[in-house]
Order: sequence, then structure tokens, then C-alpha cells
Amino acid sequence: MSVAVQQFEVELVAIRDRVNVRLAESLAPLDDCPAALRESMAYSLLAGGKRLRPILVLFACEACGGLIDDAMPVACAIEMIHTYSLIHDDLPAMDDDDVRRGRPTNHKVYGEAVAILAGDALLTLAFEVIARNTRNGSVAAACCADLASAAGWCGMVGGQVADLEAEKQLEHRYSSQTTSCDVARTGAEQSLIQLEAIHRRKTGRLLCSAVTLGARVAQADTNLVDRLQEFGKHVGLAFQIADDLLDVTGDAAKLGKNVGKDATLGKMTYPGFLGIEASRRKADDLIQEACRLLEPLGSRADKLVSLAHFVTRRDH
Amino acid sequence: MSVAVQQFEVELVAIRDRVNVRLAESLAPLDDCPAALRESMAYSLLAGGKRLRPILVLFACEACGGLIDDAMPVACAIEMIHTYSLIHDDLPAMDDDDVRRGRPTNHKVYGEAVAILAGDALLTLAFEVIARNTRNGSVAAACCADLASAAGWCGMVGGQVADLEAEKQLEHRYSSQTTSCDVARTGAEQSLIQLEAIHRRKTGRLLCSAVTLGARVAQADTNLVDRLQEFGKHVGLAFQIADDLLDVTGDAAKLGKNVGKDATLGKMTYPGFLGIEASRRKADDLIQEACRLLEPLGSRADKLVSLAHFVTRRDH
Repeated sequence: MSVAVQQFEVELVAIRDRVNVRLAESLAPLDDCPAALRESMAYSLLAGGKRLRPILVLFACEACGGLIDDAMPVACAIEMIHTYSLIHDDLPAMDDDDVRRGRPTNHKVYGEAVAILAGDALLTLAFEVIARNTRNGSVAAACCADLASAAGWCGMVGGQVADLEAEKQLEHRYSSQTTSCDVARTGAEQSLIQLEAIHRRKTGRLLCSAVTLGARVAQADTNLVDRLQEFGKHVGLAFQIADDLLDVTGDAAKLGKNVGKDATLGKMTYPGFLGIEASRRKADDLIQEACRLLEPLGSRADKLVSLAHFVTRRDH
Repeated sequence: MSVAVQQFEVELVAIRDRVNVRLAESLAPLDDCPAALRESMAYSLLAGGKRLRPILVLFACEACGGLIDDAMPVACAIEMIHTYSLIHDDLPAMDDDDVRRGRPTNHKVYGEAVAILAGDALLTLAFEVIARNTRNGSVAAACCADLASAAGWCGMVGGQVADLEAEKQLEHRYSSQTTSCDVARTGAEQSLIQLEAIHRRKTGRLLCSAVTLGARVAQADTNLVDRLQEFGKHVGLAFQIADDLLDVTGDAAKLGKNVGKDATLGKMTYPGFLGIEASRRKADDLIQEACRLLEPLGSRADKLVSLAHFVTRRDH
């Protein structure tokens, strides 16, 4: 590992610690909140994890000349939204997962009702944290609007519904056992397009919004916000490919969840369509293209560039 | 029915229609949203209902000298949050209800997964609508913060968890069959305090925030906001008592849901503790006290006063 990479990983740990402290503070016990609800929220929100989305917010803000502290409310909010989506995705009615980040999933510990409500509460708290703690009112409103758009019916939630629908379609296709080669190939191409469309919404929109939200807090001009948005789109897709690859090649202990589950479930994945090597190349190409977009920012964007590369080597 | 009451009910229908038009516009189909998700959101959001919360926002804004149109985004947002809470409350893991507003509940029609996600999407959209469509950025941020606080872990969601816990406690108490009179009486008093605490959060905080949000949009001074907050607290509690009474005395067809369900479930209710007559008196006293608080506003508060009275005669 190069010295630059080692140094970056030290910085990464330091900024992650700052995020973790702020997240813990945001869940300080309050008299009006039932203990079981707070515990359930904290169980998932303070369970560790890479904190990729909040760090993207903070580094993007810095790259645009803003202050880390000013972006901290937005950084915490996006992690709350990411966490709520994991709690709800794991529910029996959805992916029905028992393990997450190496521990039993939220509903396994607190029951389904409290898990649903803890998710609702984290989603709600995300907007409160931004609206109450972002210094400039107009910036706060713009961030709430952007984050809601990325997380909502045309973003992450819409992607989750599209994903559920695609799984059903795939089950139907497997069960009807089409044998014609031409039909199968056309189906695979269509499915790859469908897969990208789903990922763009399910994970891409939120990751992308992390970058643009950082730029908004720094009050960057429109050109710069647009440039960071393109960067975010590329990184978001690369992240998803890396995630799919980890499910095939990863180590269950490091990952903290069952591996090979996507394949078992017949889920559409990049390695499933393109093979492992081509998927790796695609992720690398996306990251290189993303970093090219940041060249005009010079050294201010160094941390963002390092983070983009870090995203595709997440099993280290 | 007096001429004044008739006239008010005409106004009520007119303002409800305006709210309904705006709610329908807010769910206009968008390419990025899967049709099933939009349909599920619309099924519950556009299912009718009294629109009490949005109308409270609009009349409170008017009473403080603001414009109805300026408060419309906040009015729609609060109805979205109310609707999401109903969808999630009806889920099998929560109250497990099959009927709502005279129709099958959301998850009965669209399945549990889509119902959970439709709720998530409506909650998210609520903040987007305020943040994007409220003219003044600082007002938008203040409204997002207040609404999130009323709907979140120390407000509505916290109240729902407390309610679930209280039901379990009650089941335990019934099953352990305490027979000592003193213990039973102390238990009943404690339970009434507990009941008020739960309702204050579960329904009261959101109803109360409707009134203060209207005042915020009108940029009312702190004194006026505080006065309206007190008004909202009284009306919120009266509303809950009226709701409990409807469950005992109401007509299932008019109500669009099963009556007597609370008693069957052994839920804590006002008529259960105080009896029907004393509950009615308590609701009337609360409304009278609420209206006294608005006297300094003179005729500007006429609609709010009429609405407060309307709240306790909801079976008409």
C-alpha cells in the first residue's frame, strides 16, 4: 500500500470518527422518546459501517471551498436516511434478512413494529437535523428538497419498488423457461438496461446527492454543482458494481452479511450479466472518468478523488 | 343547524376541495416513479377524509394575517404525513387493520412491501413539498424542523411506540387479574395520565403543529405562535376524545371503519375511563377554553373557532 493511500486511510478514520460522534449526539436520550424506540434507532444508526455517504458530503463541501462543520448536519442526515432504508429493506415483507453488518437485523432484535417505526423516525429526524442545524435557511431548504427528491418516490424508494418488481419478473421468466437464444439475449440486454435504471435510483441517486449536497452547503455555483453531480453519478454506479462483486468474491466475516445471496435469490447483478472481470473493468473505467471530471478543481479535490478510488476497493 | 354553521360548512367544503386539488397535483405521474408506487400513494392520499390538519394550517395562517396560497405546501405536507402514519399503523405488524375510510387498507390492495414503501415515500415527499414550494427559505426550514419534530421520535412516532407498549402492559394487567380495589384505582389514575401522554404525542403533536405551522407561514410573532400552540393542544386532545367517542357511539358506515374495535382490543380510551357523558363534557370544556385563547384575534379567528367546534361534532 502506498504512503499516500495509507495517509488517506488515516484521514478517513479521523473523519469517520467525527461523523460517528455527531451521529451519537443526534440520538442523545430525550424524555419524550420511548427508550425502546431510541435504542432501536441507535442499534442501526450507530452500528458502524463505512459512512461513505456522509464522508462524500463533507469532502465535496471541502472541495467546493466550504467548511466541514457547516456540512455536518447534512452528512448526518444522509446516513440516517441510508440507515432507515436498510432497516425497512431487511423487513420480512421486503428482503427478509436476518443479518446486517455482522449483527441480527433490527426487526430480529426489536420486533417488526418497532423496526418499522425506528425507520420512520430516522427518516423524519434526517430532515429535522438539516432544517434545524444548517446555518442559512435557504441552503437548509435547498438541501431538504434535494435530499427528499433523491430519497423519495422518484429516487431511492422508487428504485426499491422497481427492484421488487424486477425480481418478480425474473422469477416469472425463469419459471416459464424460455429456450430460444435470440429471445434470451434480447432479454439480457433489456435486463442490463433495467438493472442500471434500478441501481441509478435505488443507490445511485442518494450517493449522487451526497456530493451535490456538499456543494450546496458550500454555496458552489451551478456549473460546479453540475460537475459534481456527474462525478456522483459515475461513483454511484461504480459503487453498486463493487457491491455486486463483493457479494460474489467477498468474505462473509468482513462483509458482516451472507455472501452469494444475490445469486441464490436470482437477483440481477453486474457479475451475473458481464462476468467478474468485465464488471471490475467497468467499475474502474467509471472511477477514472469520475476523477477526470474533478481535474479543474486541482488539489482541493484530492480527498474526493481518493475516496472515489477507495469505493472500488471496499473489501480491503 | 344555524345559518352560521351552514355557511361555515359550505366554506369547509370549498377549502377541502382546494386542498384535494393540490394533493392530486402533487402526485401527478412522473416518469421516474414506478406506477404501482404512485398508485399506492394516491390510493391512500386521495381517499377523501376530512382534511382537518391541512385546513387547520390554512385557517391558522389566515387568522395570523397570512395568505391561504402561501400555506398550501405545508397544508399538503401535513396531510401526507398523516396519511403515511395511517398506512404504517394499519400494517399487520402494527394494528393489522383491513378497512380504512370504507375501503380495504393499503397493504390489502398493494401488498405489505409496497405499502411500507408508499408510506416512506409520502413521508419523504412531505418535506420536499415544503422545502421546494414555500417562498421564503427560512420559513421553509422552520416549517420542516417543526413538522419533523411533531411527527418524529419525540412526537407522533414516539407516541405510536408508547401506545404499542401500553397495550402490551394492559394485556399483562388483565391477564394477571389484580383484584384489590385500591391497586385498581391507582392503576386507573396512572393509566389516564399515561393515556393523555400517549395521545398528546400520537395525535396531539401533529394537530398542534398544524396550527403553529400556519402561524409560521404567516410569519406571526412569538406571542401569537405560543397562543396558537396552546389552542392547538386543547383542540388536539378534544379531537382524540371525540375520536374515542365515535368508536363507541359512531355509525360504522359513516365512519368507514369498524366501530367498537378499541374496546374489543382492550385499548385505553376516554369513554373507557371516564364514561361517555364525562368524556363529552371534557371535550366541550377543552374546545371552549381553546376558543377563549383566540379572543384577542377578533373576527380574523372566526373560521378557526368554527373549526374547533366542528372537531367535536365529527359524526354529523
